[in-house]
Amino acid sequence: MTQTFVPVRRRGLMLVLSSPSGAGKTTIARELLATDPQLEMSVSATTRAPRPGEVDGKDYHFVDIATFERMVSEGEMLEHAKVFDNYYGTPAKPVRDALAAGKDVLFDIDWQGTQQMRQGARSDLASIFILPPAVEELERRLKSRAQDSEEVVKKRMAKAGDEMSHWPEYDYIVVNHQLDSSVASVKAILTAERLKRERQVGLPDFVNALRSKT
Amino acid sequence: MTQTFVPVRRRGLMLVLSSPSGAGKTTIARELLATDPQLEMSVSATTRAPRPGEVDGKDYHFVDIATFERMVSEGEMLEHAKVFDNYYGTPAKPVRDALAAGKDVLFDIDWQGTQQMRQGARSDLASIFILPPAVEELERRLKSRAQDSEEVVKKRMAKAGDEMSHWPEYDYIVVNHQLDSSVASVKAILTAERLKRERQVGLPDFVNALRSKT
Repeated sequence: MTQTFVPVRRRGLMLVLSSPSGAGKTTIARELLATDPQLEMSVSATTRAPRPGEVDGKDYHFVDIATFERMVSEGEMLEHAKVFDNYYGTPAKPVRDALAAGKDVLFDIDWQGTQQMRQGARSDLASIFILPPAVEELERRLKSRAQDSEEVVKKRMAKAGDEMSHWPEYDYIVVNHQLDSSVASVKAILTAERLKRERQVGLPDFVNALRSKT
Repeated sequence: MTQTFVPVRRRGLMLVLSSPSGAGKTTIARELLATDPQLEMSVSATTRAPRPGEVDGKDYHFVDIATFERMVSEGEMLEHAKVFDNYYGTPAKPVRDALAAGKDVLFDIDWQGTQQMRQGARSDLASIFILPPAVEELERRLKSRAQDSEEVVKKRMAKAGDEMSHWPEYDYIVVNHQLDSSVASVKAILTAERLKRERQVGLPDFVNALRSKT
């Protein structure tokens, strides 16, 4: 793929990827991050204990409950949720810093997190929903992922069906037929979003300099 | 470049390319059309006489003044202008037909045409403004194009400066540093626009079919 670039100073953007589990989102995100130095992953904060092998600041920011609640009350979480007894959330500061430096930030969050983020940062946000090409494919992926009972797979399928109903809340929809094609699609969306007029904050100066010589 | 595709039935879109002359727009348009079978060029109508070698229906639709004026009064022109004694305009019907068939239509028009088109078809329209990387480059291109006097080149440069002032009216801005990169940028924009939720009109049926099996 020919390299594209935005030569004018620009403001970073927040790229949200959501999907029902099993639709291939995580693989797509990994491919994007591996090939795009301008893009960084948002690292969530959580109050749950680290699992073996998890690295603080890389897999999660591990914080205690008091810290988490303070961050929420001070507006320092872009979105958060409580799952069973644990909090999960997206700290705002690393995102603000990345955007100001002209970097883009990738978010792997669900539709509830996306709804919360949309309220605060509409113009900096582009959201993509990944759909599976067929239910059989989704079932195959969910089954191959773990040796779960048929009952568990059924529950996950029902949950995936619920999650899918939120596609109308997203800017772009990618049906993940083929990984290569879906990665190319998401890359194209990122490239296009970078080329939006309002993101290229250096344009007024750039055009004034051009026009002053005509 | 990995092929991307939109597997769900979609509505076509209108892609407008504008630029000051000499910024490289025509070359970019030609590259796009040569590699994208889903994209077709809008052919303008004009009342001026065909020049040697021009083909009716390919270079222009050559029509008489009465026909042109009737089309305007019946709303059958998406945009039109009078340049000296000749009319130029974009007939609506071929565009409507292409969009309904899921094809995308490329328009090579100026900022005045774009303004007129924007009024009628906002949601089907994506607009790109191509800027030259530097004024020296623009001047070089304008000079190499024809053996014009310095006076003529000066006038063209001034006109280019005026045209450039309309960049804030466009959705996307591409600075044409390198042709390959600019073509890739415009292709990415086209791909992303095709993946917008509202363009994929087959999605409600597609997701309903998926969900009915979960």
